[in-house]
Amino acid sequence: MRIERGTLADLATGAAFLGSGGGGDPYYGRLMAEAGLARHGAVELLPLDALDDDALVVPLGWIGAPTVSVEKLPGGQETVAGLRKLEALLGRRVEAVLPIEIGGGNGLAPLAAAARLGLPLVDADGMGRAFPESQMAIFNIRGVAACPAVMTDAGGTTVTIEHSDNLAHERIARAVSVAMGGIAHMAEYPLSGREAKAHAIGGSVSAAIAVGAAIRAARQAGGDPFAALYAALRASRLYPFAGELFDGKIIDVERETRGGFSLGRVQLEGFGGEGTMVLEFQNENLVARRDGDTVAMVPDLITVMDRETAESITTERLKYGQRVKVVGAAAPAMLREARAMAFVGPDAFGLGEPYRPIEMLNGWTAT
Amino acid sequence: MRIERGTLADLATGAAFLGSGGGGDPYYGRLMAEAGLARHGAVELLPLDALDDDALVVPLGWIGAPTVSVEKLPGGQETVAGLRKLEALLGRRVEAVLPIEIGGGNGLAPLAAAARLGLPLVDADGMGRAFPESQMAIFNIRGVAACPAVMTDAGGTTVTIEHSDNLAHERIARAVSVAMGGIAHMAEYPLSGREAKAHAIGGSVSAAIAVGAAIRAARQAGGDPFAALYAALRASRLYPFAGELFDGKIIDVERETRGGFSLGRVQLEGFGGEGTMVLEFQNENLVARRDGDTVAMVPDLITVMDRETAESITTERLKYGQRVKVVGAAAPAMLREARAMAFVGPDAFGLGEPYRPIEMLNGWTAT
Repeated sequence: MRIERGTLADLATGAAFLGSGGGGDPYYGRLMAEAGLARHGAVELLPLDALDDDALVVPLGWIGAPTVSVEKLPGGQETVAGLRKLEALLGRRVEAVLPIEIGGGNGLAPLAAAARLGLPLVDADGMGRAFPESQMAIFNIRGVAACPAVMTDAGGTTVTIEHSDNLAHERIARAVSVAMGGIAHMAEYPLSGREAKAHAIGGSVSAAIAVGAAIRAARQAGGDPFAALYAALRASRLYPFAGELFDGKIIDVERETRGGFSLGRVQLEGFGGEGTMVLEFQNENLVARRDGDTVAMVPDLITVMDRETAESITTERLKYGQRVKVVGAAAPAMLREARAMAFVGPDAFGLGEPYRPIEMLNGWTAT
Repeated sequence: MRIERGTLADLATGAAFLGSGGGGDPYYGRLMAEAGLARHGAVELLPLDALDDDALVVPLGWIGAPTVSVEKLPGGQETVAGLRKLEALLGRRVEAVLPIEIGGGNGLAPLAAAARLGLPLVDADGMGRAFPESQMAIFNIRGVAACPAVMTDAGGTTVTIEHSDNLAHERIARAVSVAMGGIAHMAEYPLSGREAKAHAIGGSVSAAIAVGAAIRAARQAGGDPFAALYAALRASRLYPFAGELFDGKIIDVERETRGGFSLGRVQLEGFGGEGTMVLEFQNENLVARRDGDTVAMVPDLITVMDRETAESITTERLKYGQRVKVVGAAAPAMLREARAMAFVGPDAFGLGEPYRPIEMLNGWTAT
């Protein structure tokens, strides 16, 4: 499969949903990808198992507070500069790239550089959704080193982090992204093809495209985009359960930026005053409680969508009065393993309750 | 001249005075230098004009809040790791090192690595005293690039900053030092021998040793260490005016740590209640006002010293009740040029008054 310019809108729609409220606005990622593909042609989407064991494969993405990226458009040279620096450091060529997270703008982040450098995009990512911190990547959960990592900014500055453990790497990278003006590009967790096949979350790029295509087709046919979304998620096998958690309007949003993160809480009310839902977020939506009962929590996906258009609404764009559906989906199985819970489960975000799968909380059955 | 273990006490005493209240406590710098010299032998002190034009010469130092270094002793491998990384990056060997600032602990920072690697120490530095920020180095004032720069910490992490302008470099390096736990080692402003000869502040290492030796000799002979200090500073030609600004006791100290800096204000009272002095500091002492009149300001040196022992007291060790002399000295001429004022003059610290030389403010005459 090749990713053409015509594929980008679907990929952006799917990545926005998989962002679970975070990962940055896909709009700018799409603009950059469109410019890259227009100039350099389509990008090959490589199945994960087609990678050579010895290939050098590099996850890419932007790091920073998502609210910044709305105002400060990256320059586009950052990705190429970061890959070139990593190649110089490792003494070999990069053979394929993938998004560090499929959710949000980062789902499209590697495309412009892949087009320009003629590199394939691996059909996989490091999070299966979006998460706020680098050490929440499956590669860290599985013990892969984040370093050497290369950060670049629109001004041409390059910061290389080496010989750091993954937690110190996240702390340093976060501080550098703030010093770089709030957003920076990062190439991290350089992988062998063997490591990528063992640890990357395979099929997530094509799942995002399928999700976007399903929503688009339902809109065009005058059908129900939500039914199409749930069917596409289940069909992907990566997100085997999906459904509606709530239908209503937003009656309150609290939000603050702290330590480079966007933190907050959203309240919704059912139409006719029936029922309530409360969402808590840290860049991404972390937990959904309906009438006081938890109905979804990390690492499962929680996305707020416009109830008419099925457009995903990132946490920084949530507003009083929006009429929305809250949609949930089961996280990829690799994120639900016991070893993943310390990094991406409710305890990792201080939620104070044990993880329970979304399908159990909602009585959803496999199709 | 060679720097032997026996020279280190004098160098530390002189560096403490030239720190102008900052630059970190020389005690740990001296410990590390002693361990390095004990194991690897003496270090050659190379006159600035003996450098080959094409030599690679690297200024070294620690960056971070000085209060941290009191509690967190660096490991000692950081300097060697940073130099090795810089060599790999530039594809050539480092031929000599120098302190980025002669004042405080950084005046001794390069010695352990110089001993271990068999490198000479250049008799020069980048500040002629201590300053709180990297862009206050004479190399930045003269337009030399700070990058590539390499930061290292006790855990082995290496952060390389490239292609950055000098202000962004300072901002990134400051953020990284905080993320590294409050203190990090940095190799920055890599110089050719030609650049070092044109821009480094020559003679400052030997001036620090001479200052320390003069104070020690006066103490041993039962003489006046302050008179010896003033004579040694004037004899160095680098600090052509020096003298007492105030004699009294500390009656108040206000201090806060903000943005990685130690900021504050000290009040002194003359014995018998005669006269007052107020000092303001940002890591280093910035301005001295006697009975409301400014008598010294940056870049001139202001150091608080124990009035019995002539030990220099860093700003983080100032305490109510200390009986002290406040000593001032003219800054090296390169720091008083018009182009230097925007970086190290009173405006650079927001003092809101034009620079006036310390010898004019106090009516001191050349000897």
